[in-house]
Amino acid sequence: MNRKVFFISDGTAITAETIGRTLLTQFKKIEYEQMTVPFIRSEQKLSPVIDLINRAEAESGSRPLVFSTLTNTDLTNKLAKCNALVLDLFSTFINPLEAELGTRSIHIAGQTHSLVNKGIYDKRMEAINFTLTHDDGASVRQLKDAQIIIIGVSRSGKTPVSVFLAMQFGLRAANYPLTNDDVGSARFPKILHAHRDKLYGLIIDPERLQQIRQKRKPDSKYASIRQCRKEINDVEYMYQYEHIPYLDVTHSSVEEITSQIIQEKGLKR
Amino acid sequence: MNRKVFFISDGTAITAETIGRTLLTQFKKIEYEQMTVPFIRSEQKLSPVIDLINRAEAESGSRPLVFSTLTNTDLTNKLAKCNALVLDLFSTFINPLEAELGTRSIHIAGQTHSLVNKGIYDKRMEAINFTLTHDDGASVRQLKDAQIIIIGVSRSGKTPVSVFLAMQFGLRAANYPLTNDDVGSARFPKILHAHRDKLYGLIIDPERLQQIRQKRKPDSKYASIRQCRKEINDVEYMYQYEHIPYLDVTHSSVEEITSQIIQEKGLKR
Repeated sequence: MNRKVFFISDGTAITAETIGRTLLTQFKKIEYEQMTVPFIRSEQKLSPVIDLINRAEAESGSRPLVFSTLTNTDLTNKLAKCNALVLDLFSTFINPLEAELGTRSIHIAGQTHSLVNKGIYDKRMEAINFTLTHDDGASVRQLKDAQIIIIGVSRSGKTPVSVFLAMQFGLRAANYPLTNDDVGSARFPKILHAHRDKLYGLIIDPERLQQIRQKRKPDSKYASIRQCRKEINDVEYMYQYEHIPYLDVTHSSVEEITSQIIQEKGLKR
Repeated sequence: MNRKVFFISDGTAITAETIGRTLLTQFKKIEYEQMTVPFIRSEQKLSPVIDLINRAEAESGSRPLVFSTLTNTDLTNKLAKCNALVLDLFSTFINPLEAELGTRSIHIAGQTHSLVNKGIYDKRMEAINFTLTHDDGASVRQLKDAQIIIIGVSRSGKTPVSVFLAMQFGLRAANYPLTNDDVGSARFPKILHAHRDKLYGLIIDPERLQQIRQKRKPDSKYASIRQCRKEINDVEYMYQYEHIPYLDVTHSSVEEITSQIIQEKGLKR
């Protein structure tokens, strides 16, 4: 069965997608065909979407699933009448919140991912710029300005982790590669000594590391299983010897890895 | 009034934060003190959180707001009894979905941001690596592998936009800086000609550009309002002359900019 799924929003639709997809992960056997419809702020824009939904229902014989974060009451009411299961994320929770807080909500479209909170937004953008200029040890001068420094051997996942820390959580995350020379000794590279409170180490299964390196430099010593095993062994020993917190990232996503790091290091998200 | 807000999840809590913060943007006058509690997968881990919530209520005299995406029924029931307004994002929508789909949900924790869908995840990670190696025109050899190429003058916001396209939407986004030499002419740099279908231009208010550049190179010609006005003028003329879609990013967030680009270029999100 191939269910049509619509994510409808008056903003970017990122919230509708996030909660909708979260709920759908709980139904494994169903196949979905997804369509995201952002920036719906008038009847004129909503009408063709409703036509699409109704046509999908008529053609497939099963009701589409609609996840909506529309804030406008007229549009919400109109959408509620289409031939679909409409899950209205906004109204469902806004009423109990209004009762609890004793105040009316503003019902203004597209607040979540707009520039309403300029301070927090600017902090995130600065963090991204910081992280990109400190990727792969590119600039060590400003490591003191980092809130967290991710360390690990080549291709162990430092870059996506750092970028996600900056993009999602607004943290100035640097990363520093531990090269073959570094991991030969049980001690850190000198440059890191002053920043040990900010260090967080990554390790990864040597077989997985070998696969990743093999794609980059096929059949090199760098990509050999022997080399990968040695580096991971050495680096884990180094983390333990230096009492640096570390995580095996083989079976975790960047979302899970970064949430774990933030919690362990007591950073503010 | 300073309301305590808790985001509680058995996974990373990113979904709980996203929908919770979305709802809170609709209540402007309330001040919040937020706390995120990820990875709650046992009664043992939930109990101290409930104590925290109850203490917050006792101390402040007003009920905390709790946004939960817990999937386990026992934990959900336990949480529902605390002295707070508990908005249970999971159960509220999972029941109508079960009825509609005629099947039980799996009720397994932490599915959203885990590696359950390895294919999509790997695509995102590849996109991030691609985008970082193609930041600021660093590598032009593989522009042909890009799905989208963001162009604009220095500091007009190309990097955060590209990184977000990769991180959130899994798109291989490159970016290419239009230098002073380029924008002097109404034609594109040669290198871009072969890729014109993938190009998307950014412009920004010259006053805002001047502020940003001033921070980077104070009192330089590069940061002068005259230079900023000239570059933005030239580049806008170039986009129009070459029939390239473009967007003024001055008052938009990366989420809004990227959603707009994806929609306009017909990319899959």
